[in-house]
Amino acid sequence: MRKLVTLTTDFGTRDAYVAQMKGVLYAQGPVDLEVVDLTHEIAPQQVLEAALFVQAAVPRFPQGTIHVVVVDPGVGSARRALMCEHAGQFLLGPDNGVLSLALTGAYRAVALRPERFVSAPLSATFHGRDLFAPAAARLARGALADQLGDIVSQVEQIARPAVEVRRSELRGQVLHVDRFGNLISNISRDALAAWLPEREWGQLRVQVRGSAPLQIVRCYADAAAGSTIALFGSSELLEVAVTNGSAATALAAKVGAELIVSATSML
Amino acid sequence: MRKLVTLTTDFGTRDAYVAQMKGVLYAQGPVDLEVVDLTHEIAPQQVLEAALFVQAAVPRFPQGTIHVVVVDPGVGSARRALMCEHAGQFLLGPDNGVLSLALTGAYRAVALRPERFVSAPLSATFHGRDLFAPAAARLARGALADQLGDIVSQVEQIARPAVEVRRSELRGQVLHVDRFGNLISNISRDALAAWLPEREWGQLRVQVRGSAPLQIVRCYADAAAGSTIALFGSSELLEVAVTNGSAATALAAKVGAELIVSATSML
Amino acid sequence: MRKLVTLTTDFGTRDAYVAQMKGVLYAQGPVDLEVVDLTHEIAPQQVLEAALFVQAAVPRFPQGTIHVVVVDPGVGSARRALMCEHAGQFLLGPDNGVLSLALTGAYRAVALRPERFVSAPLSATFHGRDLFAPAAARLARGALADQLGDIVSQVEQIARPAVEVRRSELRGQVLHVDRFGNLISNISRDALAAWLPEREWGQLRVQVRGSAPLQIVRCYADAAAGSTIALFGSSELLEVAVTNGSAATALAAKVGAELIVSATSML
Repeated sequence: MRKLVTLTTDFGTRDAYVAQMKGVLYAQGPVDLEVVDLTHEIAPQQVLEAALFVQAAVPRFPQGTIHVVVVDPGVGSARRALMCEHAGQFLLGPDNGVLSLALTGAYRAVALRPERFVSAPLSATFHGRDLFAPAAARLARGALADQLGDIVSQVEQIARPAVEVRRSELRGQVLHVDRFGNLISNISRDALAAWLPEREWGQLRVQVRGSAPLQIVRCYADAAAGSTIALFGSSELLEVAVTNGSAATALAAKVGAELIVSATSML
Repeated sequence: MRKLVTLTTDFGTRDAYVAQMKGVLYAQGPVDLEVVDLTHEIAPQQVLEAALFVQAAVPRFPQGTIHVVVVDPGVGSARRALMCEHAGQFLLGPDNGVLSLALTGAYRAVALRPERFVSAPLSATFHGRDLFAPAAARLARGALADQLGDIVSQVEQIARPAVEVRRSELRGQVLHVDRFGNLISNISRDALAAWLPEREWGQLRVQVRGSAPLQIVRCYADAAAGSTIALFGSSELLEVAVTNGSAATALAAKVGAELIVSATSML
Repeated sequence: MRKLVTLTTDFGTRDAYVAQMKGVLYAQGPVDLEVVDLTHEIAPQQVLEAALFVQAAVPRFPQGTIHVVVVDPGVGSARRALMCEHAGQFLLGPDNGVLSLALTGAYRAVALRPERFVSAPLSATFHGRDLFAPAAARLARGALADQLGDIVSQVEQIARPAVEVRRSELRGQVLHVDRFGNLISNISRDALAAWLPEREWGQLRVQVRGSAPLQIVRCYADAAAGSTIALFGSSELLEVAVTNGSAATALAAKVGAELIVSATSML
């Protein structure tokens, strides 16, 4: 059975950091280990961005996948290093919240004890190569959780900004700007449906940074090129987009910009 | 036998889109499926750029390779989704011309019918994850064409800009600017040879955006660093380059810039 | 046994160059060949940058790995093409020094003779696809060195800039700026220890481009966010960093900037 090990980092690929991690994984893992790049383009040290990425990606992978997530500004400090089992998959990363959004149900976590599986002294600046990759390689070889560390009862949580619910509007914010310049908010389809039944969404208007009030459409191609639209994207989060263009550029909007959904009947 | 699935997209890797596609492929495909990244750096929604990329890359791959190409501004609209068999390989992508330049000989195409192989309702914004990756996974498991869709007799074509042939010159244009700033035109070695026998090329002069008239050389190292040169690149297309520099920067030239080849004997 | 083939290039992934190399490797190699991307983001034609990258990455990989390194401004000229065996691994690349920093012990090198294993005439502009990838595929199939080329006794060397040792200070320079903006110098831990015993490093001060004199700390998290610090990074080279920020930006420093370590007791 092949052993998939995915990598999610803020290392980029200009430097040899990711290459070194791959070398360690292939050298220390079983012969059927296969490394899969998820991203190395998380903005440097942006733990929330990485946590959202991991939350979106991990559930798509098969049972038994090992995910290594290294966005780790606290490397070398006393922060713990984790291995979590969740829904038949394994997640490794620093205990700074980066794994927490993906842990949506029951999970078991251990704090890694490198002295159990790493012979060399641990570097103080690159645990991706010297701690997490060796741990993932051991796991792929069949190591049990207690060979890697000690069970811990709690892991650091990271908060997704909350949506503010008012009588006549929902106030959310831009969580992420994607490559297309789509402004992806923290307002989920479920949260909107809990506030107003879906059959009444025709009356809703979405605004971000002083845009015109936008109706919610179904897909990008539902409007002429250059139009600003609102729709639910592939993560079922409300987003504002410009057809064949960039909403981020057109509206000069960034992560954190306020996004308001108002119901005309409630005004 | 290993099943290769390549990915060509305009998604970048900052966002979780590609990671989600990889998850679906590994989760739904056979255990010997292997995902190969070709590029995720096609400029957003640039279908011609992607079609040229696919045309250059696909012929190099072995029989049985499955290529998934997602540059899809029309996602969610009525545009069809295709699976094409061509020269022993398989290509999946939207029917917007993105596959058409690679289909150089006989091929068989089906329009995907997702209800035959996808259980969940189809998202309106991300067919890479919800339609093309599942179809590729089924194909890798051995599905036959008619289990995926219905045969269609024609697919959308995309035009490569034509070369204008005059008595004393050929007028082409810059098709692509590569990472080195090389200006790659639509004038092929064969087209030039059809116009003037190769033994007479010594008299040819190439000009782009008011550069000096350039002779055609054999390789980048044939001129001193900093020289502007014309040569046939690795796709046998005429290009203008600056040795150890960028012609795009030096000549302030972009995709679409006119490139003229003139024969001094014909003036 | 799986055959790993790694790729290190300055091609980027916007263009089809890397995709074509992967196609050739999978088409001509054995069925258990697996391509591993190390980087395609070496700055165009920067041979020293690539040589440092390869030196950092290669030792981490298992015996039998084949590394293909293509940063090749001299392609098509008379420069030789190499295959080197070193410490149980194989390195292929142009003979311009790009492999030389990784060849730290005994090695055997052959100059590739393409007529022995390539049937098509060799292109003059893309040996990555037409020479190195076919050679790597042959090697992965079990070809012996003399089926690929002729033994050579020497390969081009590339020099890492030397550290200047004075009585009261070491003068080095910035070798590399990484994605985090860390300024990585050519002063190794061993070189510094040879100059002054590690127990006396408390008196050392590091300066780059007129920064305040910095003490050497252990890890990035050893200082408050925004602090400028000096430390040994994961390659055991002295670097200057800004905690959770970019030293390159803060100090407007680039590759080549002078970095001075002085011992207060020696002043």
